[in-house]
Amino acid sequence: MREPEVREAGLVCLGVDPGLARLGYGLVRQSGMVVRAISYGCVETGPDMAFTQRLLYLYDALGEQLKACSPDFMCVERLFFGRNITTAEYVWQARGVVMLLAAQRGLAVLEPKPNQIKMAVCGTGTADKTQVQRMVQRLLALDAIPKPDDAADALAIALTGLSIYQYERKMKI
Amino acid sequence: MREPEVREAGLVCLGVDPGLARLGYGLVRQSGMVVRAISYGCVETGPDMAFTQRLLYLYDALGEQLKACSPDFMCVERLFFGRNITTAEYVWQARGVVMLLAAQRGLAVLEPKPNQIKMAVCGTGTADKTQVQRMVQRLLALDAIPKPDDAADALAIALTGLSIYQYERKMKI
Repeated sequence: MREPEVREAGLVCLGVDPGLARLGYGLVRQSGMVVRAISYGCVETGPDMAFTQRLLYLYDALGEQLKACSPDFMCVERLFFGRNITTAEYVWQARGVVMLLAAQRGLAVLEPKPNQIKMAVCGTGTADKTQVQRMVQRLLALDAIPKPDDAADALAIALTGLSIYQYERKMKI
Repeated sequence: MREPEVREAGLVCLGVDPGLARLGYGLVRQSGMVVRAISYGCVETGPDMAFTQRLLYLYDALGEQLKACSPDFMCVERLFFGRNITTAEYVWQARGVVMLLAAQRGLAVLEPKPNQIKMAVCGTGTADKTQVQRMVQRLLALDAIPKPDDAADALAIALTGLSIYQYERKMKI
């Protein structure tokens, strides 16, 4: 697992909001105090596809993104489920595919919990979804809140990754 | 997803008992009424490895097995967890990697629940672990109960796969 090196152009983090039906991704570059979204989007798979085919589709689509953007590291949300285990099992399996891709590309992965993401982006672990989306727009100086929601969430996750990385390393990017 | 074709030599099923620390696999061939174990074993990863590296290790090791044995289809246990969600998330992610491998090789996957496996192998959904292992030994005409347990479980899963396949297709193998 290689440690991300600080490049002159800054540090690039790929944030991923894992899911089987909708997997959000967002690529953010930080140079000094400036953070900018490079790209973001959402990979979708429908229930008309077999489960294994959906995993393969996510693997191929996110793999293409990784090849195209070459991030320095990844940040993938740690999932929490209550009693809704039926949905959980599919999302966890999709997350396994995301984590495999990180390993195959030799990328370190940060795994913040939902409240850590809210804390990093909004300053409070109890912020609601709209508040997170507004802060993503503001921090990245975007004209509007990124759509779809999964992409906005993924950008928040990428911002969290950069924030944790700086804090833990106590270094300037 | 290609449908397994019945070959003259019989039908070959790879059974997988998914796990992060220990992933059992067992390859069983059925020709007529005769079922025989071709190979079985257990892939292990230790807590000294990073989580993503463990997934990659499982992916590579099981991928090698798949390449070597070319099964006609796979059978992967459907997991059930009570409240022990902490373990569940890692096992589910490992299972995601197994399911991805099946898709990459174009193999159909059967996903029996634990009680279906007990029913197929022992004739009752409430059989205990020892009973399942004894029946695996007997059905496959092995000199001893296969070791480790994960491999014996995987062989039971493969036997279940062949049984479900025959039953659902109502055909002779």
